[in-house]
Amino acid sequence: MIKIAIDAMGGDYAPGAIVKGCLQAAEVYPDIQIVLVGQSGRIKEYLPGEAIKPNLEIYEASEVVEMHEHPAAAVKKKKDSSIVVATRLVKDGYADAVVSAGSTGAQMAAALLYLGRIKGISRPAIGTVIPTLQSGKLLLDVGANPDAKAENLLQYGVMGKIYAEIILGINNPKIALLNIGSEEGKGNELAQKAYELLKNSTLNFIGNVEGRDIPYGTADVIVCDAFVGNIVLKTIEGMASSLFQLIKEKITANTLRKIGALLIKPGLKEVAGSLDYEVYGGAPLLGVNGTSIVCHGSSKEKAIFNAIRVAKECTEQKIIQKIADELEKSNGN
Amino acid sequence: MIKIAIDAMGGDYAPGAIVKGCLQAAEVYPDIQIVLVGQSGRIKEYLPGEAIKPNLEIYEASEVVEMHEHPAAAVKKKKDSSIVVATRLVKDGYADAVVSAGSTGAQMAAALLYLGRIKGISRPAIGTVIPTLQSGKLLLDVGANPDAKAENLLQYGVMGKIYAEIILGINNPKIALLNIGSEEGKGNELAQKAYELLKNSTLNFIGNVEGRDIPYGTADVIVCDAFVGNIVLKTIEGMASSLFQLIKEKITANTLRKIGALLIKPGLKEVAGSLDYEVYGGAPLLGVNGTSIVCHGSSKEKAIFNAIRVAKECTEQKIIQKIADELEKSNGN
Repeated sequence: MIKIAIDAMGGDYAPGAIVKGCLQAAEVYPDIQIVLVGQSGRIKEYLPGEAIKPNLEIYEASEVVEMHEHPAAAVKKKKDSSIVVATRLVKDGYADAVVSAGSTGAQMAAALLYLGRIKGISRPAIGTVIPTLQSGKLLLDVGANPDAKAENLLQYGVMGKIYAEIILGINNPKIALLNIGSEEGKGNELAQKAYELLKNSTLNFIGNVEGRDIPYGTADVIVCDAFVGNIVLKTIEGMASSLFQLIKEKITANTLRKIGALLIKPGLKEVAGSLDYEVYGGAPLLGVNGTSIVCHGSSKEKAIFNAIRVAKECTEQKIIQKIADELEKSNGN
Repeated sequence: MIKIAIDAMGGDYAPGAIVKGCLQAAEVYPDIQIVLVGQSGRIKEYLPGEAIKPNLEIYEASEVVEMHEHPAAAVKKKKDSSIVVATRLVKDGYADAVVSAGSTGAQMAAALLYLGRIKGISRPAIGTVIPTLQSGKLLLDVGANPDAKAENLLQYGVMGKIYAEIILGINNPKIALLNIGSEEGKGNELAQKAYELLKNSTLNFIGNVEGRDIPYGTADVIVCDAFVGNIVLKTIEGMASSLFQLIKEKITANTLRKIGALLIKPGLKEVAGSLDYEVYGGAPLLGVNGTSIVCHGSSKEKAIFNAIRVAKECTEQKIIQKIADELEKSNGN
């Protein structure tokens, strides 16, 4: 039976939203066991006696890593924090995967400390599925390694390929490099070197994509360093939310428009739905030797439910093993 | 009398849209002289005899730098290209400013070759005014220097401050560093070093902003290296256009929604209007020792008109001199 450990204390809406997402997952997936890791007293507040499922358990962890703490230092100091305990459950073989919406830095630090890296990976990456006009596509790295080298970007391509194939169900995914022009030779030093490596790899490398291509879903996997990736990801979020805010304001500015707004409301809801990152739940720390799924800090019930689904799929599909195999294959070439 | 030289052959819609924008500017600003630089035969196609203004002249340049050419090489080779000739007119004192919607790289190469840099500036930057929920704000560098150093970013802050004060009319503009977290100490090596320099400068430095803050207009001037800036700028453009495409599709998906769409159409037009970069016309190559205004490649009549307005204001306000003074002052501290 697959067992998934959840950091019940991590995230803007923890532990309430986390517990609710777990209850939903426990109901929908009776074949998995969910381990809520955290302060049992606080977790139980959201667990009405009659609602608890047989495949849901609580594992006590007395401490919490806060968002403002230095990730690596906090992980070393707070050995009984929910993220450390949940990650250790994976290391010890008690659980198959860990899911958290808490400090991503702390989750990465705990993963590196207790799970280590997949052989051949020098720096893990955080992938995220971004909504585009053509379904969800993978962008990485969005947070792990802000001073990446070209070799790292090549490895992101290899790991991204596996993730896109297995979890997003894309056959022979198109891999692209995020850059400031479409032609070869464009970009800063890092991008120029990474282009060379990607071009000479066995990946289905389609070349450079520019910022404006991202929302159109031209590529299935886009690689970049974490500084660029994180800023781009947040720019996309900010653009979506600010535009919706502006649109709502303008289309309700007078009575006539308000009537129109009512009529098109279902359409706008569909647009919002297609931009909803909660559908994708979370994305793994790619390159870590164990399944550790990162959720958005503002994850609610639905995102947590979907992150558990992703953790389940990653485990069932043996994604870690497949990445290790692919790396060995590509290094053998 | 202020004289502005326009690269009539640069841009996706050249020379037609360029000539039309110039005709409009010549009409609205009878106190400036506009010099259309390019292939006179092609320019004249768009200049009906009776429409030509006394304050509009043509200056022959037989060659054109194409978008696919290597900028520096093309500028050296094509000495009679419209961008080179227009820039030389500024160097020779015949014109006060140059405006182009052609290859930005070629415009920069020509500016560096013929106008040089302002004393104290090691690397010029391209600024661009981006629409936000709170009027237009300046983002720089969006294209000149993809491998910037921390000192460059500090100078972008100084130049951006002057531009925001004079052209955007913002008093004591708030300067921010684009980064992957709001706290000090965040980011890659470049951002960490730049933060230190900005913090210790005389600028009104408000710290880091993240990608999601950009569309909300939290800062008046945002500095970053050109790799990040260019990708962010294009991501913003891509998000705006892809979202509008999706919204149009969804709000006209059935008859009822089509009726609603008609009623809210003026509201959506207002939203589109507030995102319209053509209002801002163009932005100067900041740090170049002469006024050289960069327009978006897809500029049409309105953008060209507004770029001429910006060129006029930069000249009237002696922006180059003010940047030089400010640099001297900040170096003297």
